[in-house]
Amino acid sequence: MLRIIKTGGKLIENAAVLNNLCDSLAGFAPDFILVHGGGLMAGELAGKLGVEVKMHEGRRITDRATLDIAVMVYAGLANKQVVAALQQRGVNACGLAGCDMGCVVSHKRPVKDIDWGYVGDIDKVDGSALDALLERGTVPVISPITYDGAGQLLNTNADSVAQEVAKEMSKRHEVEMVFCLDKCGVLADVDDDSSTIPVIDRKLYEEMLHNGSIFSGMLPKLENAFKLIDAGVGSVRLTNPDNLQGGTLVVQ
Amino acid sequence: MLRIIKTGGKLIENAAVLNNLCDSLAGFAPDFILVHGGGLMAGELAGKLGVEVKMHEGRRITDRATLDIAVMVYAGLANKQVVAALQQRGVNACGLAGCDMGCVVSHKRPVKDIDWGYVGDIDKVDGSALDALLERGTVPVISPITYDGAGQLLNTNADSVAQEVAKEMSKRHEVEMVFCLDKCGVLADVDDDSSTIPVIDRKLYEEMLHNGSIFSGMLPKLENAFKLIDAGVGSVRLTNPDNLQGGTLVVQ
Repeated sequence: MLRIIKTGGKLIENAAVLNNLCDSLAGFAPDFILVHGGGLMAGELAGKLGVEVKMHEGRRITDRATLDIAVMVYAGLANKQVVAALQQRGVNACGLAGCDMGCVVSHKRPVKDIDWGYVGDIDKVDGSALDALLERGTVPVISPITYDGAGQLLNTNADSVAQEVAKEMSKRHEVEMVFCLDKCGVLADVDDDSSTIPVIDRKLYEEMLHNGSIFSGMLPKLENAFKLIDAGVGSVRLTNPDNLQGGTLVVQ
Repeated sequence: MLRIIKTGGKLIENAAVLNNLCDSLAGFAPDFILVHGGGLMAGELAGKLGVEVKMHEGRRITDRATLDIAVMVYAGLANKQVVAALQQRGVNACGLAGCDMGCVVSHKRPVKDIDWGYVGDIDKVDGSALDALLERGTVPVISPITYDGAGQLLNTNADSVAQEVAKEMSKRHEVEMVFCLDKCGVLADVDDDSSTIPVIDRKLYEEMLHNGSIFSGMLPKLENAFKLIDAGVGSVRLTNPDNLQGGTLVVQ
């Protein structure tokens, strides 16, 4: 089984957390792909450089200066720190932005009411490029910088990158998509961390929807998980980075 | 023939120059490896961030803040811009830092009279990793960020990276090492750019040494070229980036 593991920026910005995560990941090598963000680092660098963070309805607009920061932080510092930490544990990782091997091609989001700037919506993941690495025991570590095939780098949502990678790789492998969250999974009782529901299939999901027993923060994540399953992904795990084989497993 | 092409930072920081270089490089694809610097960009970012550039006898000391800048600029912005520009021209490039696929392993330079900080001296280039990419038509684009195998990224001289890559790949391919310079090659008359000497072999080199007819700036470059040839590299070209098949070819 091939795991596609999505971790947030916060997780890789703390050395202790990064080390713990890489210890866990090493056990899956070489059968995984990591997709990471790097959010806090980018905000810090923007602050130091005096680059104003432009937002519209709670979402960031990526102007040229913000794009350069995203490329430096996501594809540079965050990506190489993760790769070096994995290599230290004997995992032969290879950091990739979407331009590398042409692995994630996107297009600049069209301007409608608002110009989101250098933001890419994904067109294509090159599964054969990722497989070429996996087949020689090399683990792809993907940052959410994509490109448009015409020379332009684009900032892309890391969840979207992970999901498109999972869908593409599902054509080639049995795939489990693992989302690392702050929560330990889907809880039966939102105030009790020990109440994680180990497996949710569509029948249980529909019962829970009917009962209104899904904590609102988890509703879009579960909805999304079933969309991935509909798109061919074998299973989706919602869990804490300390517990990559635990949490809640979402299955058909 | 496999070309290992070393280009300086200045060349990739100007969009027009980068585009010209990538146009030329596209003609060699997929039989080349590019090693780049990114010097001016790093200095600019350090200036904006108020990070003091520490020097000792004209050479930079890499403290933690300077290393982070080097990783962001060399392995991030510069590397991905070059890769995107090559992809635009149909060259399936893959950007690599030394940690990626473990392709360039180094150790922190030992502290003697001076602590150079996070500077790496190269131990090993993994030619099989680079060949795995080349064999599928993917062109490695290497930034001079190496790592020590124990999780530490290290800043490394880009010329050294290029040379060690050339030596290692010479065990596997017929290699031409191409240094992109400001000058168009070794000139017979230092004031006449049209006086480029097309080929210099060891016999001519020794005659020129004897006559004192080598412009002082070229002396270390020629000396170095013959060291590479002694180490198995087929030929070394000293040329301008506009003329990657011209300039001066140094041969045994």
